[in-house]
Amino acid sequence: MLTIYGDVNSGNCYKVKLAAEQLGLAYQWRAVDILKKETHTDDFLAKNPNGKIPLLEMEDGTLLSESNAILYFLARDTALFPTDKLAQARVLQWLFFEQYSHEPFIAVARYIIRYLKCPPEMAARLQSTQEGGYKALAIMEAQLGKTPFLAGDRYSIADIGLFAYTHVADEGDFDLAPYPAIRNWITRVEQQPGYVPIG
Amino acid sequence: MLTIYGDVNSGNCYKVKLAAEQLGLAYQWRAVDILKKETHTDDFLAKNPNGKIPLLEMEDGTLLSESNAILYFLARDTALFPTDKLAQARVLQWLFFEQYSHEPFIAVARYIIRYLKCPPEMAARLQSTQEGGYKALAIMEAQLGKTPFLAGDRYSIADIGLFAYTHVADEGDFDLAPYPAIRNWITRVEQQPGYVPIG
Repeated sequence: MLTIYGDVNSGNCYKVKLAAEQLGLAYQWRAVDILKKETHTDDFLAKNPNGKIPLLEMEDGTLLSESNAILYFLARDTALFPTDKLAQARVLQWLFFEQYSHEPFIAVARYIIRYLKCPPEMAARLQSTQEGGYKALAIMEAQLGKTPFLAGDRYSIADIGLFAYTHVADEGDFDLAPYPAIRNWITRVEQQPGYVPIG
Repeated sequence: MLTIYGDVNSGNCYKVKLAAEQLGLAYQWRAVDILKKETHTDDFLAKNPNGKIPLLEMEDGTLLSESNAILYFLARDTALFPTDKLAQARVLQWLFFEQYSHEPFIAVARYIIRYLKCPPEMAARLQSTQEGGYKALAIMEAQLGKTPFLAGDRYSIADIGLFAYTHVADEGDFDLAPYPAIRNWITRVEQQPGYVPIG
């Protein structure tokens, strides 16, 4: 059976959980508490030297890190990942966009507010996430105004990867009201078979 | 023929050029100057709403962004990308590591020094790249002490993706002297068929 090390409230971990649920995979969830620095124990660092969750452990002990690489591993050869090379690259384009141009703003804002309880010394850091976060949302809105899912006509791990933090963007003080295409897409994702909520 | 929009001194763009050269692909290079804001003209934003290079344009006008997604597109079904699912996911793990845990430190430091000429108001930002950059180098060093290439025994786009900014890390004031496995790996990459230097 697969083991997923994660925090149920982390969007990066939720991506893996959502994909595993939608694919009907058997897995056990091992809770890891970031705030208690459980990702920085010697035992955990031996499994992932980068000290991050989620982490996937296979039955034979093989380890795989990076949420979006895990999504690829779980989803290749399933309905959640296309077969055409360009379509695959398009899915990956959105997943790299997520890690570089979306997560560092939208997830970080939520982390500062929800996990760290917004201490005064983080106010400037929090403020600095606004411009990049809204830019990322505008790019998603433009795409979702043209196609029902990010990589085109079909639901894929690109949607799982971007849904994770976008649908809770309000917890990072981002207002989705001006983004109707994103809000409609959130509803479409929530209607996919096997959907489970975060948390 | 493929068109690559890029800046020859940008590591993200160089990744695509190096892969294209090593794969013997026919392409034309279209120079785009970031400092002249050529990535933010209306024409360019119509091609990539995220305003970033590199950008790949195919003969039929199809566009693909995100350097590491472009690497996947060029390298799938070639010697630069494995066929086994886990091996593929391992390559992607390193490419996602590159964009989240390496580039924002090592590439950003080089950008501040080399492109922006290190203005005084950027000193704190530059300093903030040190911890994350050296952490990324330590993770690479540990892997390259065990395997000749990042994803295992074979050279792949994981190496191209990480080589781009690592081999010029000194331009961001990172000292590679304490990282012998990385330095030996740099030499191995430079010896690969079809290698071309950055710039």
